[in-house]
Amino acid sequence: MEYAQLSDTLSISRIVQGLWRVTDWNYSDMQLLKFVEEVLSLGIDSFDQADIYGNYESEKKFGEALKLKPSLREEIKIISKCGIKLLSDKFPERKAKHYDYSYEHIVKSAETSLKNMRTDRLDLLLLHRPSPFFNAEEVARAFEFLKKGGKVLHFGVSNFKPSQFEVLQSYLSDSLVTNQVEISPFCLEHFENGNIDFFQKHKIKPMAWSPLGGGNIFNTKDEGIISCLEVLNRIGEELNCSVDQVVYAWLVKHPVGICPVIGTGKIERVKSAAKSLEIDLNLEQWFQIYEAGLGEELP
Amino acid sequence: MEYAQLSDTLSISRIVQGLWRVTDWNYSDMQLLKFVEEVLSLGIDSFDQADIYGNYESEKKFGEALKLKPSLREEIKIISKCGIKLLSDKFPERKAKHYDYSYEHIVKSAETSLKNMRTDRLDLLLLHRPSPFFNAEEVARAFEFLKKGGKVLHFGVSNFKPSQFEVLQSYLSDSLVTNQVEISPFCLEHFENGNIDFFQKHKIKPMAWSPLGGGNIFNTKDEGIISCLEVLNRIGEELNCSVDQVVYAWLVKHPVGICPVIGTGKIERVKSAAKSLEIDLNLEQWFQIYEAGLGEELP
Amino acid sequence: MEYAQLSDTLSISRIVQGLWRVTDWNYSDMQLLKFVEEVLSLGIDSFDQADIYGNYESEKKFGEALKLKPSLREEIKIISKCGIKLLSDKFPERKAKHYDYSYEHIVKSAETSLKNMRTDRLDLLLLHRPSPFFNAEEVARAFEFLKKGGKVLHFGVSNFKPSQFEVLQSYLSDSLVTNQVEISPFCLEHFENGNIDFFQKHKIKPMAWSPLGGGNIFNTKDEGIISCLEVLNRIGEELNCSVDQVVYAWLVKHPVGICPVIGTGKIERVKSAAKSLEIDLNLEQWFQIYEAGLGEELP
Repeated sequence: MEYAQLSDTLSISRIVQGLWRVTDWNYSDMQLLKFVEEVLSLGIDSFDQADIYGNYESEKKFGEALKLKPSLREEIKIISKCGIKLLSDKFPERKAKHYDYSYEHIVKSAETSLKNMRTDRLDLLLLHRPSPFFNAEEVARAFEFLKKGGKVLHFGVSNFKPSQFEVLQSYLSDSLVTNQVEISPFCLEHFENGNIDFFQKHKIKPMAWSPLGGGNIFNTKDEGIISCLEVLNRIGEELNCSVDQVVYAWLVKHPVGICPVIGTGKIERVKSAAKSLEIDLNLEQWFQIYEAGLGEELP
Repeated sequence: MEYAQLSDTLSISRIVQGLWRVTDWNYSDMQLLKFVEEVLSLGIDSFDQADIYGNYESEKKFGEALKLKPSLREEIKIISKCGIKLLSDKFPERKAKHYDYSYEHIVKSAETSLKNMRTDRLDLLLLHRPSPFFNAEEVARAFEFLKKGGKVLHFGVSNFKPSQFEVLQSYLSDSLVTNQVEISPFCLEHFENGNIDFFQKHKIKPMAWSPLGGGNIFNTKDEGIISCLEVLNRIGEELNCSVDQVVYAWLVKHPVGICPVIGTGKIERVKSAAKSLEIDLNLEQWFQIYEAGLGEELP
Repeated sequence: MEYAQLSDTLSISRIVQGLWRVTDWNYSDMQLLKFVEEVLSLGIDSFDQADIYGNYESEKKFGEALKLKPSLREEIKIISKCGIKLLSDKFPERKAKHYDYSYEHIVKSAETSLKNMRTDRLDLLLLHRPSPFFNAEEVARAFEFLKKGGKVLHFGVSNFKPSQFEVLQSYLSDSLVTNQVEISPFCLEHFENGNIDFFQKHKIKPMAWSPLGGGNIFNTKDEGIISCLEVLNRIGEELNCSVDQVVYAWLVKHPVGICPVIGTGKIERVKSAAKSLEIDLNLEQWFQIYEAGLGEELP
C-alpha cells in the first residue's frame, strides 16, 4: 500500500475504506471487526465516516465493532464529517434539511462522532458540503476548540470549490489538509472548475468519493456512460484487470495524488482495489479514459 | 437601525434608501425633503443614486430637495455611480449605449453628480458595471484625483465579479469598500459565482439591489417565482410579518453583512423595511427560502 | 509597427505572423524567404509556430527558408509550442491523440523545433493547451533545463485559464510572458472567464489566435456571425477600411495589449493588417463591435 502525506502529521492510505453503507452490509459487530482487520492487513488504514451516514447509525455501528478490540484504534485513521442536518426520525423537530456550520453544531457533531465511535479523537474532520450560509470566523472558533481539546487532530472540507476553500483557509492558522470531492471518469467537474489546479498549486491531495460513479453505472441506459464503460473494458483487457481496477489506477496515476474512497463491504473487492495501485496505466490510456468520460474529443 | 462599517471612515445604514425612481414618485421638492427627513428619522442615513437614474434627472431632483435644507447634507451619506453612457435625448450625439471608464468621464461624471446634488462631496462612488473595455490604471488615476480634491471620499464597485474586483483593487492604494450586486431569493447568482465567498474572505459588506426581485414578482406567471413566494408567504405567517420583511430579514441575517437598497417612495413601506431588522429568522427558515429561490433541493 | 514588451528581455511586434498553414501556401523555399523578408520589412518581426502545425511539417518548411539566409535569424523572434501529440503517419505507434507535458516530451519537442527551424534557440516556447494530466513540477524542471542550455529564452502558455496559469507560475521562478488565446468579435470567452481581468492584473499581454474567427466567417449561415459582420462592415465604411482591419484595430485598441496572430500567406493582406494599427476606432465603435459579437445588449 502507498500512503499519502496530507500534512506533516497525517498520512492516509491511498485507498480509503468508506463506511457510508456499513449499516447495509448486515455484518454482526464481530464480522465488521473481522472485515476491518482484513482491510487493515492490506495496508488500508484510513476509514471514512460522516455523522449522517446510515441515517446517523454508521458511526455507531463502526464503534460497536471497534469496541471489541480497542487496541485497533491506534492502528487506524478515522475521518468523519459534519454540517448537514438531515430530516430524520432521529430529529423529529426538524422541518427542512439544511446545513449548520454554527460553533455549537460543529462541536456537538464532532463530540457525538467521538462518542459513537468510542474514541477520544478524530484524525480528520471534514465540513461535508459548502453552505450558502457560512460564517468562516465561527467555523474557525469551533475548529480551534476541537483542536485544543485534542478531539480533532486535522481539518479539511468536502465538495468545496476553490473560492469556498480559500475563504475558510483565510480564517485558519492551520492548513486544511484535504478536500474530498467526487472524481471519476463519470464525474470530471473538478477538472473544469479549477479545483484540480487549486490542489496542485497548494499541494493538496484530494480524496475522491464515488470513484466508480456511484456504483449504478453498470445498469444504466445513459449512452455516455455505456460508451465510457466500453473504453474502460477495453483497457481492462489490455491490462488484464477489472474495470474497477482500471478506474482506481486512473485516479491514482494523476499527479495531484488522488486518494479514492471505496464503498464496498466485500473483502475481495477491497483486495482488488488495493492491487490496482500496481497497475501501470500509460499516458495514452489515461487520456482515452478522460476523453471517454468527457464524451467529446480533446481540442 | 443597525449600521454597517464599510471602512474605518464610512458606515452606512443596513437599509439603504434607493433613489432610482425618485422622479417617478411625483413628489414636489418639499414633499421629497419631507420624505428624506422621515427616512432619516428611522435611522436610514444612506441614499443611493447614479448619474443615469431617471434619464439623468434623479440626482437633480434629489439636489432640489436638499437645497431646501442644506444642513441635511451633514446627516446623510450620498452614494452615486458612474460609467454607463445611456442613449438619451440629453446626449443626442451618442450612437450606442456603452460604458466609459476613461479618466475624463469618471471625473466629469462625479463632478456633475456633485453639482446636481448640490454637495461638495460624495461619500461613496461606485463603478456601475464591469466593462469589457477597462483600464484599471486609468480608473486609479481618476479615483486619486477625486479623492485628493475631497470630491469623493470612498470608492466601490457594482455588479463586479471577483476577478474584476481584484484587477481594480490591485491598482489602488485604498480598499474598495463595497460591491453593490443583485441579491434576493429570486437572484442567487452571487452565491454561485464566488462573490459571496470573496466578500467574506476580504470582509467586504455588499449592498443588495433589487432585494425584492425588481418588484414585479407579484404579478408573474413564472412558476419558480410563484412557488418561492409561497414559501415566503408561509414564513411571513410564521413570523407574523410581510413578505417584504421576510426577504429583508433573510438578506440581513446572512453573515457577510448584506445591506439591502430599497426602492420604494412610500414611507410606510420604508418603515416596514426598517422594522425587518428586528425579525429573527431561524436557520431552517433561511434555508427554506434559499432552497425555494434555488428551485431545487440542496445536495 | 508597434511592439509589445512581453518581459524585460522580450518584445514582439503587435502583429505576429502565424505559420500554422505555411505548408498550404505552396511557396518554394525561396518564395517563403521572400515572404518572410517582406513581412519583416513591415516591422513584423515575430513568427508563430508549433511542433504539430502542418502535420509536423511547418517548422521544417520555415527552417528550409531560413537556411537560405541564416543572418535573418538575428532579426526575428521565433515562437513555438509543444504538448499536443497528434495522431499522424509520422507517429504510427500512437493510438490516441493526447497531451504530454512530461519532462522528456517537452525537452525533446523543443529540441526538435530547434533542429527543424535550424536555429539554436526559441525566443518563446508555449505550452499549447492546458492538460487534465499536468505535473507543474515536472514542467518547471523541463523549462529550467531548456533555459539553462540557452535553448529557450522565454516561456508562456496557450489556451490556459487563470487557475491553470497560476498553478504553473507558482512552480516557476521566471514569469510566464504571455498566454496565446482565441480572441475575436466571434470569440469573447476570455472576457467572460476571467482571463482578460487576469491579464490586466498581472500585466500580461496576450496573443490572439484566429483574430478573424478562423477565416470561415465569410461563408457562414450562422445568424449571429452574419449580423456581427454587418456591424463590422458598417464600421469599416465609417473608417474607410476593410473588415479585417476593423477587427485588428478592435483587438489592438484594448487596454491589455492584445497581439493578433495573423494567418495569411498573402503579403497584401499582411500589409493591410500592419496598417490597421493606425486606425483610430472610437469607444462607441469598440462597444458596437463587442455587443455585436456578444449577440445581445449590454446590461
